[in-house]
Amino acid sequence: MMEFTIRRDYFINQLNDTLKAISPRTTLPILTGIKIDAKEDEVILTGSDSEISIEISIPKQVDGEDIVTISETGSVVLPGRFFVDIIKKLPGKDVKLSTNAQFQTLITSGHSEFNLSGLDPDQYPLLPQVSQDDAIQLPIKVLKNVIAQTNFAVSTSETRPVLTGVNWLIQDNELICTATDSHRLAVRKLKLEDEDIDNKNVIIPGKALAELNKIVSDSEDDINIFFASNQVLFKVGHINFISRLLEGHYPDTSRLFPENYETKIEMSNSDFYHAIDRASLLAREGGNNVIKLSTGNEEVELSSTSPEIGTVKEDVNANDVEGSNLKISFNSKYMMDALKAIDSDEVEVEFFGTMKPFTLKPKEDDSVVQLILPIRTY
Amino acid sequence: MMEFTIRRDYFINQLNDTLKAISPRTTLPILTGIKIDAKEDEVILTGSDSEISIEISIPKQVDGEDIVTISETGSVVLPGRFFVDIIKKLPGKDVKLSTNAQFQTLITSGHSEFNLSGLDPDQYPLLPQVSQDDAIQLPIKVLKNVIAQTNFAVSTSETRPVLTGVNWLIQDNELICTATDSHRLAVRKLKLEDEDIDNKNVIIPGKALAELNKIVSDSEDDINIFFASNQVLFKVGHINFISRLLEGHYPDTSRLFPENYETKIEMSNSDFYHAIDRASLLAREGGNNVIKLSTGNEEVELSSTSPEIGTVKEDVNANDVEGSNLKISFNSKYMMDALKAIDSDEVEVEFFGTMKPFTLKPKEDDSVVQLILPIRTY
Repeated sequence: MMEFTIRRDYFINQLNDTLKAISPRTTLPILTGIKIDAKEDEVILTGSDSEISIEISIPKQVDGEDIVTISETGSVVLPGRFFVDIIKKLPGKDVKLSTNAQFQTLITSGHSEFNLSGLDPDQYPLLPQVSQDDAIQLPIKVLKNVIAQTNFAVSTSETRPVLTGVNWLIQDNELICTATDSHRLAVRKLKLEDEDIDNKNVIIPGKALAELNKIVSDSEDDINIFFASNQVLFKVGHINFISRLLEGHYPDTSRLFPENYETKIEMSNSDFYHAIDRASLLAREGGNNVIKLSTGNEEVELSSTSPEIGTVKEDVNANDVEGSNLKISFNSKYMMDALKAIDSDEVEVEFFGTMKPFTLKPKEDDSVVQLILPIRTY
Repeated sequence: MMEFTIRRDYFINQLNDTLKAISPRTTLPILTGIKIDAKEDEVILTGSDSEISIEISIPKQVDGEDIVTISETGSVVLPGRFFVDIIKKLPGKDVKLSTNAQFQTLITSGHSEFNLSGLDPDQYPLLPQVSQDDAIQLPIKVLKNVIAQTNFAVSTSETRPVLTGVNWLIQDNELICTATDSHRLAVRKLKLEDEDIDNKNVIIPGKALAELNKIVSDSEDDINIFFASNQVLFKVGHINFISRLLEGHYPDTSRLFPENYETKIEMSNSDFYHAIDRASLLAREGGNNVIKLSTGNEEVELSSTSPEIGTVKEDVNANDVEGSNLKISFNSKYMMDALKAIDSDEVEVEFFGTMKPFTLKPKEDDSVVQLILPIRTY
């Protein structure tokens, strides 16, 4: 017999975040809904697609301002997207929800009155419980950075399910995140502040990390990360974000990194990026995404040819070119993804021969390495 | 052997407007391209999907600033969307185009160089010629207003092709624009300043008016409109916008308007609109768009019911309710479209019985009338 009155603008923001866990395509119909629990001193919203779950607590007050007045505790499940659309369009500053014993829910605001058929919250699946000790703590902006630098490289194919996730390896107080779709690979290493963290080796689904990245807003605040045997919980402020972990063994990729480059170029990340972006227009129009790169003395030339359409040639000024002259071809999208992930104005690219993977990293910084397999054309 | 150098930012804007006439789905492949004519003292861009055509003249100077330097006159047709994408991404302030006798076109800007296969401009269809005397002149903002108030009501079905256009009837120095999809009808009347305009009765395709509306930006400037037997030319600044006219007879709709209302309500356009918008959330979720309206003493109630989902009730404060009590049902989308088209804070709605079309118009203003057929539910 739940009943509460809540500030509409605040409610909308929390509902929008809860919706991010909900998929319209679900095998369990109740999961298209949002579970609302009014407790003595908080309202809890839950959304889940059974892979990821989001639990948001709405306290009675925020910054001394009244947010929610709970007259009767209780629970109901309401149709997710549709319920949120209604709350968004209501006219009043506040909205009142009251649910009867059959879970019929009356929603009133101003001169507007909706009466929705709700579902029994006891039918809603229980969320996995993750024990909240043994946390890793990271500033949110660091976590977002780690996600941005690796997550784009996960595989979108289900052929090898482990590759659809990012491997988080914690050993000797270092976090090593690795993602690969077997055409390119991204690695990000990070020293952890805390000295007493147990070693771990888990695979977090790429989709979960992408949703998490959308929900948490850039800030200096910390996020706490807890691991259970097959779940991970990210806890930030009043939001609990839970994802299952992928099962299986992640391949050992450390031996993929070559040593002793044959050719090395250093250049402006943005100049290189934009030149590839232009060349890729023609490469894409031609039906493949292949761009050729050749180096001479202090010169880097990009080119692409499509017999029907035409040709493009881009000269990029390099700050430094070392080693032997090189001709190599690559997928322009992989290169652009890698350059975006390298959070630095200057980039170092090391080549180990026309047929071998090459690496990109920020100048004088080994915390991020992007590795790309070339395409055979020469 | 065309060759010119042009300010890139200015070129991009003109190309974007030209693109609006181009459809990727065309039976004549050359129409996916943009025709570029470099003449002695201007460059002319042409795009067409054979229904509408856009011709833009780029002068050598704009506001005393050099825009284009033409070294050799000539013409070429270049692949539309793709060419524009290239120009947008080029690095320099200027871009140079030079075409050889085989219509290969070299595009250079900064360190970037594209070489595109162009097409022979002689293969490009000739645009219809519209004689430029006997113009109607309207301020652009009035034209845009007229389009916004009628064009939404055209039919999207090809069953009766004339209904996919807006009827422009000019008689006795008045312009009467009418659009209907046979479920609702929009009429906008406008006195013309000029006293000597020939009577006309034409049908302009709704799609053409929609594109025109996107291209011309709101201003106090005038647009000139010229009619030929089967074409209309809108001329504004350096843009010529040409559309074919629809053939056939537009139905006489003047007898559709009832007289002597049974019930009349006056209320705030925005209060009414938002109440319908909310009620339509439920109506749409329930699979139809039907909303019921009932009037009592100074009261207007909107409601909608979907057995599986729930109910909604909205009370709207009316400024005035006259005549007998009424219950009527309508399609919420038609009502919202009509209210948006009524460019006024207060709206008058006149009902002539549950089964008869009803009308909406601005309070004390007959220049716009929206007519809607009700839905039988009571």
